[in-house]
Amino acid sequence: MHIGFVGGTGIEAMGLALRFTAAGASVILGSRSPERAVRAAEDFHSKFGPSLLCGMSNQDMIESCEIIFLTVPFSEALHTVAAYQNLFKPHQVLVDVTVPLAFRAGYPEYLDQEGMSNAEIIARALPAGVPLTAAFKTIPAAVLADRDSELHCNVFVCGDSEEAKAEVMAVASLIPSLRPLDAGPLQVARTLERMAVLAIALNRKYKRKGARFRMEGL
Amino acid sequence: MHIGFVGGTGIEAMGLALRFTAAGASVILGSRSPERAVRAAEDFHSKFGPSLLCGMSNQDMIESCEIIFLTVPFSEALHTVAAYQNLFKPHQVLVDVTVPLAFRAGYPEYLDQEGMSNAEIIARALPAGVPLTAAFKTIPAAVLADRDSELHCNVFVCGDSEEAKAEVMAVASLIPSLRPLDAGPLQVARTLERMAVLAIALNRKYKRKGARFRMEGL
Repeated sequence: MHIGFVGGTGIEAMGLALRFTAAGASVILGSRSPERAVRAAEDFHSKFGPSLLCGMSNQDMIESCEIIFLTVPFSEALHTVAAYQNLFKPHQVLVDVTVPLAFRAGYPEYLDQEGMSNAEIIARALPAGVPLTAAFKTIPAAVLADRDSELHCNVFVCGDSEEAKAEVMAVASLIPSLRPLDAGPLQVARTLERMAVLAIALNRKYKRKGARFRMEGL
Repeated sequence: MHIGFVGGTGIEAMGLALRFTAAGASVILGSRSPERAVRAAEDFHSKFGPSLLCGMSNQDMIESCEIIFLTVPFSEALHTVAAYQNLFKPHQVLVDVTVPLAFRAGYPEYLDQEGMSNAEIIARALPAGVPLTAAFKTIPAAVLADRDSELHCNVFVCGDSEEAKAEVMAVASLIPSLRPLDAGPLQVARTLERMAVLAIALNRKYKRKGARFRMEGL
């Protein structure tokens, strides 16, 4: 199985790629520019050592992967998915990690989009039969990208396809000290995206970088 | 300082009262019926032993308390606050713990009220100068009411009055193994109320009763 990233050169993709390759998974970083993807893969290897990771165009990556993470900035997610929508196939699972937010006077606020989560908006742009799952929204990229940080938290996974959700939970459970939780239907992304903004606000308030959620009593 | 409860005979009030009296605080259970409040206080003493707790009418309780928790069902909160609004004074702090939710086919869903949190809706009904703080929304009543459960979680406190928020956080920190966090302005109640519904959904999914949130890395 290959795990791919659309927008694979950003810190979110880097952090997840680091965790997945450390667990022995095969990872492909995608980018609009294949050169940039190849360079990101080279940087990755020089920083973290050799691993099953390479870079290529988003199109080629989509051809090659079963699970594809959408790690572009939230405002580009819809347009990016729309651009590649003819390439996605029903056996693939797309994972949305984006968080719509805006800063007002230095304070992060959830960007309400007529009551809809970014995940639900993106899901509408996918061909019928390609399931969208939302996950990893609440885990800071800075923590994922820090090899020495144990995660000690939960990853909340939601989506309307039980099969796709189970696949994403299985992939997430490759990462040590991370427990995936089935958070329900895709609509729950409205909660998860707001939780991510809360974590960012708490980081700023308490001058930390790694605030993340862990369920007690579960 | 006296801590009061409007709607003091339900399980949410009982759980919080148990935690506050165990910490040595003075608690007053309020009810529309003073007889019911007195009976609830007697039940409390026979179950948990003697403590600084008594029952009286909501009106008398509001006269006597500095911090007042609103522990009525979410759908009654607005009407209850409106009924007593002339009794609240500017030095008092009201704490809203309500969670607007509905069950659809056995699955708990957040009840969206035109994008507003229940806390914001209630705040509008208060006289000018009486601050509303939202807190304890995400901690299950069943856990609070179980004397033998250590909480090991965070209580998220939000509100537009920094002073009121600090007071509620100070009161919350009386409870052992509970760390209060300043979650920001009252608008963040939109996040906290949804998180409470997520915790309930996770309890149902994983057949538990005590799911609650704890921040890692903070």
